[in-house]
Amino acid sequence: MTAGLTLAVDAMSGDHGADVAVPAALSVLACTPDLQLLIVGRGDVVRPLVAGVDASRCRVVEASEVVGMDERPQDALRRKKDSSMRVAVNLVKKGEAAACVSAGNTGALLATARFVLRMVPGIDRPAIVSAVPAAHGHTVMLDLGANPDCSADHLVQFAVMGSVIAADLHGIEHPRVGLLNIGEEDIKGTDEIRAAHRRLGGLPINYRGFVEGDDIFSGDVDVVVTDGFAGNVALKTMEGLARFIGSVMREEFTSSPLRKLGALAATPALRGLKQRLDPRAYNGASMVGLAGVVIKSHGGADREAFASAVRVAIVEARKGVPAQIGGLMARVAAAEARVAPAG
Amino acid sequence: MTAGLTLAVDAMSGDHGADVAVPAALSVLACTPDLQLLIVGRGDVVRPLVAGVDASRCRVVEASEVVGMDERPQDALRRKKDSSMRVAVNLVKKGEAAACVSAGNTGALLATARFVLRMVPGIDRPAIVSAVPAAHGHTVMLDLGANPDCSADHLVQFAVMGSVIAADLHGIEHPRVGLLNIGEEDIKGTDEIRAAHRRLGGLPINYRGFVEGDDIFSGDVDVVVTDGFAGNVALKTMEGLARFIGSVMREEFTSSPLRKLGALAATPALRGLKQRLDPRAYNGASMVGLAGVVIKSHGGADREAFASAVRVAIVEARKGVPAQIGGLMARVAAAEARVAPAG
Repeated sequence: MTAGLTLAVDAMSGDHGADVAVPAALSVLACTPDLQLLIVGRGDVVRPLVAGVDASRCRVVEASEVVGMDERPQDALRRKKDSSMRVAVNLVKKGEAAACVSAGNTGALLATARFVLRMVPGIDRPAIVSAVPAAHGHTVMLDLGANPDCSADHLVQFAVMGSVIAADLHGIEHPRVGLLNIGEEDIKGTDEIRAAHRRLGGLPINYRGFVEGDDIFSGDVDVVVTDGFAGNVALKTMEGLARFIGSVMREEFTSSPLRKLGALAATPALRGLKQRLDPRAYNGASMVGLAGVVIKSHGGADREAFASAVRVAIVEARKGVPAQIGGLMARVAAAEARVAPAG
Repeated sequence: MTAGLTLAVDAMSGDHGADVAVPAALSVLACTPDLQLLIVGRGDVVRPLVAGVDASRCRVVEASEVVGMDERPQDALRRKKDSSMRVAVNLVKKGEAAACVSAGNTGALLATARFVLRMVPGIDRPAIVSAVPAAHGHTVMLDLGANPDCSADHLVQFAVMGSVIAADLHGIEHPRVGLLNIGEEDIKGTDEIRAAHRRLGGLPINYRGFVEGDDIFSGDVDVVVTDGFAGNVALKTMEGLARFIGSVMREEFTSSPLRKLGALAATPALRGLKQRLDPRAYNGASMVGLAGVVIKSHGGADREAFASAVRVAIVEARKGVPAQIGGLMARVAAAEARVAPAG
């Protein structure tokens, strides 16, 4: 392989496996001149899909097993050492790939990545982070489900990681960080949240205080920090409401011939709406805090959505997100040590 | 006053005070023949607004103070003993009103109602419950913010209260109850959630297991039980996303003269959509678990929205929600005692 950026793609996981992952990755390859791909999976499945692709830019790496979507993380970790997921993560560990992308089982991917890659110094646990559409473009949100119970330490670490992602992925210079709460007064929330709030004010990040659920969309902050329980609930609530509004719209726009005609006249606006809220454009959640770039695609992603996840992996690899997180975390630790020296 | 149902209306609280509360309550009075109103507030403000209304059906009860929207609950409780909110709740306590409605500060109303009315036996804390639109009509959800930290006991009590509300307010015979989690497997979630899950399966309610955020809208359950932190985050996330989608729609439908024309052609469908998702129709959160009916209107409610809250109060008062909750809670306690006799 020539110089440039190499990505490992878990070609076998997800609801649609290689039929989605491989064409999606190849479509990104076609428009990214310095990219090389390591397509990880069973040769008999994957090879036909890469036939005709320049071998200097796309190589198949054999992996005989696949982690099931419902498989328990510990089982995947212990028993499937030759899974496409594990081999893809191993390639990152060995430095043969700068990042990996998988549409596999979230718990198994988290456990595998954490076991193989280990954490960035100063970060206790990986978090799942993604962007969601908002008034000013998008808001970076974490944790989306990796850590249902969080201490103040974890929330502070999430704020650091979210700042790095907003700066590196979205080009925001001093990302404004908000801590999700159920009111904006200092007395609201749990003990952990109030403790994190007190600490965040003194750190070298652009902390703006408590925000509420509606601020995910308001444009008042660029990063929303929360524990994995509330974050996952918020994310799934959004998905459910968007789907529900979509179905009510379809009903309203098809309930009579006249309304169907109206929908026809409104097609450009409805198409614009759909494009701006298209969840596929937001596919590709980062598992941050790991000492390597691991991107999780939605299990049910189609080719366009999986391609978005591949593009996220490219940006994070080029920016060196893990090193950036390590750097900011070290500055944060130094700032906290100045405030409370020795114990 | 003649026989019938009497409601106490806190006429002074909320962003718009008497200008919204009084006309809204009178509009409901006009179409509810056996209703009587006690309009609580400063006479000089309120009397002009009820001029001409049949005095046998609408009486002004003097209260010299108003609780501010940002006032601390404990301050309201200790220092404002003649507030419109406190006097309205007192009327319920004294049995002069069957329920009260207030658009005031949530924390102050909760604290006041809990102090004055006390709890239904077997219920530890009041919870905030409301309906949200969903595929099958609506889903009853609680707690929406009263209790950020919840034990398994609290979650079980919420399931009982949600079942009663779904049956009494929405006429659902055996309401299906789901416990909000971040996955449907038994191993997911916090210790409290897993403990509540194990207990709920054995109780005389129609428990269906774990649900996720998108199930609030899916129609798979009638009641979604969660702690006040996740519930409030979900509620505010919905409000924020609905507002955001609305603003994107406005932009898309007005970005060119042709699109404006398209919007005109689509008016009936867009109006239908707006009606079906109108948050005003869902105004009126119940503070359940109290030994009396207390309904909280959104602080910024307009007349239509405040009227919805008044209608919720009427239904809960007629059904005797607190007694229903006490009854079901007693059956639940009996069922649990059979499973685990004596400590």
